[in-house]
Amino acid sequence: MKKIKIRVPATVANLVCGFDILGMAINQPYDEMEFKLLETPDIIIKHTDNFGLPEKAEENVAGVVLLKIQEHLKLKNGFEVTIHKNIKPGSGLGSSAASAAGAAFGANTLLGNIFSQNQMIHFAMFGEELASGVRHADNIAPCLLGGITLVKSTDPIDIIPLNCPNLFVAAVHPQVEVKTSDARQILKKNILLKDAVQQWGNIAGLVAGIEKNDHALIGRSLNDVIIEPVRSILIPKFDEVKAKSLQLGALGGGISGSGPSIFMLTEKEETAEKIAEMMKSIYDEINIESFVYVSKINPAGIEIINED
Amino acid sequence: MKKIKIRVPATVANLVCGFDILGMAINQPYDEMEFKLLETPDIIIKHTDNFGLPEKAEENVAGVVLLKIQEHLKLKNGFEVTIHKNIKPGSGLGSSAASAAGAAFGANTLLGNIFSQNQMIHFAMFGEELASGVRHADNIAPCLLGGITLVKSTDPIDIIPLNCPNLFVAAVHPQVEVKTSDARQILKKNILLKDAVQQWGNIAGLVAGIEKNDHALIGRSLNDVIIEPVRSILIPKFDEVKAKSLQLGALGGGISGSGPSIFMLTEKEETAEKIAEMMKSIYDEINIESFVYVSKINPAGIEIINED
Repeated sequence: MKKIKIRVPATVANLVCGFDILGMAINQPYDEMEFKLLETPDIIIKHTDNFGLPEKAEENVAGVVLLKIQEHLKLKNGFEVTIHKNIKPGSGLGSSAASAAGAAFGANTLLGNIFSQNQMIHFAMFGEELASGVRHADNIAPCLLGGITLVKSTDPIDIIPLNCPNLFVAAVHPQVEVKTSDARQILKKNILLKDAVQQWGNIAGLVAGIEKNDHALIGRSLNDVIIEPVRSILIPKFDEVKAKSLQLGALGGGISGSGPSIFMLTEKEETAEKIAEMMKSIYDEINIESFVYVSKINPAGIEIINED
Repeated sequence: MKKIKIRVPATVANLVCGFDILGMAINQPYDEMEFKLLETPDIIIKHTDNFGLPEKAEENVAGVVLLKIQEHLKLKNGFEVTIHKNIKPGSGLGSSAASAAGAAFGANTLLGNIFSQNQMIHFAMFGEELASGVRHADNIAPCLLGGITLVKSTDPIDIIPLNCPNLFVAAVHPQVEVKTSDARQILKKNILLKDAVQQWGNIAGLVAGIEKNDHALIGRSLNDVIIEPVRSILIPKFDEVKAKSLQLGALGGGISGSGPSIFMLTEKEETAEKIAEMMKSIYDEINIESFVYVSKINPAGIEIINED
């Protein structure tokens, strides 16, 4: 195999109460990435989108992952990667994770599936490190594996794929800038034990709800008393979007990753569509451009579109 | 029905990383309680054990529960309760919860099953309040329902019964006094967010492991970075008991409730027996009397032995 084209899903990290441990893949938006195995050791990155991302390998999220793989294998081959990015950088929908996980997956496929899942995650985390300074896997794991994943630990890598409930997702990306580093710095280093106890009750409830396919339990567990009250300040109209989503029948939801995107889970597609419409109109009213997405939870992760 | 005799299981609260939210019923030890419905409004409590527990209704854990039920229903009847207590008070194995949950269950049965599960938990929590000053349900819920339970919230009461893995339990109760109130006061009110994140990764892993019946995942999730490092100081030889249990093949374990009992989960009965033997010998060596118990996770909760 010399060429491959893959579809790489967006992801929602944290899932409200699961800060730094839970993540979920969604069907919309997604990136496409085309890979060619080269006879020369070059790492060539091309972006067909207009996001102005760096194309120099060592400055590009996909590039650094491929460089690490090349270095690890002492590979004489290189890769040419063309990235059609639809997941907007800075959206909080796992744009960098898509490039990083896509690079690991694409290289692994072209090289004959030589890596384990954990090895792919290991290499992809170098991309996240370039993007945000932190080697985390909350977006990478669901992007690669699909569904909902628990990152129990990254050192050693211990990823638990959870059950994938049959739910819809409405997401809005308001065009305001929330830097991951700012969203991290704003958090308190110390928290109250009593708040932590409430949070881990919710996390336990959320995991139980996901595993039991108990939608009501998922809904009443999507409650974050630690991170959301702090971070939501950075997102205009967050409280209104959330309150109106619940009124319209959302099971629950909150900030996607470190924001500014907001996601909501619903049982029916129709409900998700109504919520997306409402989200858009809220940002239209205050003249903030926004993009909305309605889709199902993505059960499969990265998929091969074609190869030859 | 005028008379009933029930068996009430011991319980292990917290389950290492699930401080204040998880609990598990075990087959050994257990209390027996006999109830008679009286025509007079008296609440008569008799203990056949020698633990010196108060028998005045308003000072007795079972008594206060029955008083609350009587008051709530404006009941003209009273109850006579004979308690054969085997779960030692102060053991950390849910002795007060057994009396409290047993009282609620016994009264409810004699009155024709008029209460919901949540109502029984509501009344039983008055017993826990008398015993420890805190209206908690971590022991009451598994005692009543059996298996492993998640107390997502006590106000409103939101209890999630989890899957009941087919595992054995070895427990040791060294005869040292650890007051629940001391065990609570020793805890820090503030914790590091990074520790909390590790803890909720473990809780999520534990709940996923329980639901998936994944014993290895249960084992590597039984890790507490917040409570155990502080509370284990109150329990002599804790570290040695834990380390040797793991060497002998325990999946994991830790402090039962607020101690001083220590429990370990195992896949095989034989392993639990070896661990119990080792536990006993460790306390024998330092001249601390201890009691050991080997049993399965109790799947049923409180059970009726006979009625007429």
